[in-house]
Amino acid sequence: MTTTHSFFRSRWVEVPGNVSELPGGLPRGFAAAGVACGIKPSGNLDLGLLVSSAPGTTSAARFTRSGTQSAPVLLCRERVALGGIRAVVVNSGNANAATGRPGFENAVKMQGAAALASRCSEGEVAVASTGVIGVPLPVSSVMTGIVRATHALRPDGEVDFARAIRTTDALDKHACIDVALEAGVVRLTAQAKGAGMISPNFATLLCFVQTDAALSVETCDLVLGVTVKRSFERISVDGQLSTSDTVILQASGSSGVAIEPETEDEVCFGEAMDAVMRQLALDIARDGEGARRVGRVIVRGGGDEVVHRVARAVADSPLVKTALYGGDPNWGRIIQAVGAAMPGTAPLPVGVTIEGIPVCTRGQYTPHDEGAVRRAVQGDEIEYEIDLPGEGAETELYFSDLGHEYVTLNAEYTT
Amino acid sequence: MTTTHSFFRSRWVEVPGNVSELPGGLPRGFAAAGVACGIKPSGNLDLGLLVSSAPGTTSAARFTRSGTQSAPVLLCRERVALGGIRAVVVNSGNANAATGRPGFENAVKMQGAAALASRCSEGEVAVASTGVIGVPLPVSSVMTGIVRATHALRPDGEVDFARAIRTTDALDKHACIDVALEAGVVRLTAQAKGAGMISPNFATLLCFVQTDAALSVETCDLVLGVTVKRSFERISVDGQLSTSDTVILQASGSSGVAIEPETEDEVCFGEAMDAVMRQLALDIARDGEGARRVGRVIVRGGGDEVVHRVARAVADSPLVKTALYGGDPNWGRIIQAVGAAMPGTAPLPVGVTIEGIPVCTRGQYTPHDEGAVRRAVQGDEIEYEIDLPGEGAETELYFSDLGHEYVTLNAEYTT
Repeated sequence: MTTTHSFFRSRWVEVPGNVSELPGGLPRGFAAAGVACGIKPSGNLDLGLLVSSAPGTTSAARFTRSGTQSAPVLLCRERVALGGIRAVVVNSGNANAATGRPGFENAVKMQGAAALASRCSEGEVAVASTGVIGVPLPVSSVMTGIVRATHALRPDGEVDFARAIRTTDALDKHACIDVALEAGVVRLTAQAKGAGMISPNFATLLCFVQTDAALSVETCDLVLGVTVKRSFERISVDGQLSTSDTVILQASGSSGVAIEPETEDEVCFGEAMDAVMRQLALDIARDGEGARRVGRVIVRGGGDEVVHRVARAVADSPLVKTALYGGDPNWGRIIQAVGAAMPGTAPLPVGVTIEGIPVCTRGQYTPHDEGAVRRAVQGDEIEYEIDLPGEGAETELYFSDLGHEYVTLNAEYTT
Repeated sequence: MTTTHSFFRSRWVEVPGNVSELPGGLPRGFAAAGVACGIKPSGNLDLGLLVSSAPGTTSAARFTRSGTQSAPVLLCRERVALGGIRAVVVNSGNANAATGRPGFENAVKMQGAAALASRCSEGEVAVASTGVIGVPLPVSSVMTGIVRATHALRPDGEVDFARAIRTTDALDKHACIDVALEAGVVRLTAQAKGAGMISPNFATLLCFVQTDAALSVETCDLVLGVTVKRSFERISVDGQLSTSDTVILQASGSSGVAIEPETEDEVCFGEAMDAVMRQLALDIARDGEGARRVGRVIVRGGGDEVVHRVARAVADSPLVKTALYGGDPNWGRIIQAVGAAMPGTAPLPVGVTIEGIPVCTRGQYTPHDEGAVRRAVQGDEIEYEIDLPGEGAETELYFSDLGHEYVTLNAEYTT
């Protein structure tokens, strides 16, 4: 069988052979909807509902570590059975953050209404909100939206759901694959939103993943933890950590295919989910509020802490990001970011390679074909390799550029 | 005597009553020049020389802590008597960084030529270079420039010198004041360059300060240390740390007015220098590669480490900076930055006040006149106050916005 990979388009994502892309359709047991309820002045979709009808649905979740978590995040942590989430209700256009006690009560109302609509208990409903911070949630609009969404629930409603959770995202972000396992074929779908406020801390975005495989709660948590670490924790748009970031995996078990711990099927399922999450993370970096290019920085050297610190300094550097945007081969920006991340080590014998071309070796420029580097940085995906003294440690980060569209979007986000 | 304050223009700088602004002229004992030697393709001034003819000149210096320090910074640290700097030679257009052993040898050549020209020893000559990283210094042009500058040295050459050290700065940054002390009147002049790569680590820019007061080496070091901490360490343009940052204070003693340790005169001189350095720091933030507005963030709360961390997170946040640029009252960006800097503390009872108007109290939006806040953030200088739990600690940072000019400049800096 030949698969056209329209979703998997990055050279940095390895797609397992047992994965087939599909145009759409949620895994068995799930239904979803996205409607407009009037939070966004544009009239665009702004309320999403996603429900599993399978009573034994298992789940796992990850949230932002921010000190100023939104009301829905606080609610999920306090009042949701995170291993048994049946329904997810999400609004966009308003983050319900910095809204105090009234905000928490509005999140409680959302949860209650979605529980009624989904015929499950309140503790089985996760709530998420994304958008402007510090504005009271228009909760009556949200209530109307939940009723409307309940009537619109469909087994192929995931595209509307994905649209309803978007804020400044320019592109839809959703995936639908079948995964052929020894025990049978299972489906995996995912919907994400990102754009600004994405940094390499876990869960810095919204992402909802569904499967009809049967997974134990522990397996859900294990697979989600590993794949989040290799995807959303490895991207940087603007080095920011949001108030609202949430990632949830739900497994309905409705396929009848069980994935047992420590089996080949568990590994295969994890690899498929890993590919989906990594592509979504890259899509989020590429869609980083107007981004034109995505960078990948690989740092090698003598310590785990230092390679991570350097990778993050490079990925978050506005000077590196503007050079990436401009298709500018100015590798001095990388030298500067590395030096700033390693104070007190001068003279540091750092090496820099861009798209396979060494430009700096042991702290000194390397004679190279400047035209070749200039051409290489015009692509969509640019790879930077940094070599620090010592060996043994290695890490990577994906990052968006910083361009005019970012400024335009963010200078006038509330207005 | 009435003084027109054309240099001191920020409401955040307190100008002592014993300070008089002057149109120009170096302190006695000093001469300076700025010439073009062909490093900048534009033909603009790119070589500055500044010399004290007083044999007993004292000095102090501060440098970047970057791990990838430029060759001139390495040279200054290794081979200059930092308490007795007589001459300073600076080129712009090329940072002489990531240039390895040949770069160091070029810095040695610059030092030697400037020593010959200034009739002092090599160890009395400080060298600085600013501009593109990772490109070999065109040292023969620099040599020609040093010869040319030697012939152009003048007691009022500081404006040309200030121009010659500029890179992407849109505005000149130099000050000339007289300070009336009990022991007599002394002059203080300063020239700075900044723009990108400015973050609140000491000395993240070039700044040269001269006085004809007589100061011991220890007093030089004390005054420079304190004033750098209150000025250049308190600004953020893009959160970056440069390879090349250098601040030098020189005292020729040629006025015959001695400033003795622990006297009223020492305090008064320090306050005058503090005002100059703070205004230069603010000018650098305002000139932060196309900046339109400058923000001041004051953080109060229960710990020194945390107030600094939060202030830096706010000042460096691209989301806060773009909102400042757009004149956007989106204080949710501040909430987000504070929360990101204090993970694991949710729900955090943070307070935010913009230009004296409380918008958030104990983590919850405060009803306020939104029109008034919107008007307040249209000004040139915007003040944000952040209240964290506890009390006793307080800090402040000044930061530039992030706008289209920053992107344009930095996306095409080498091209």
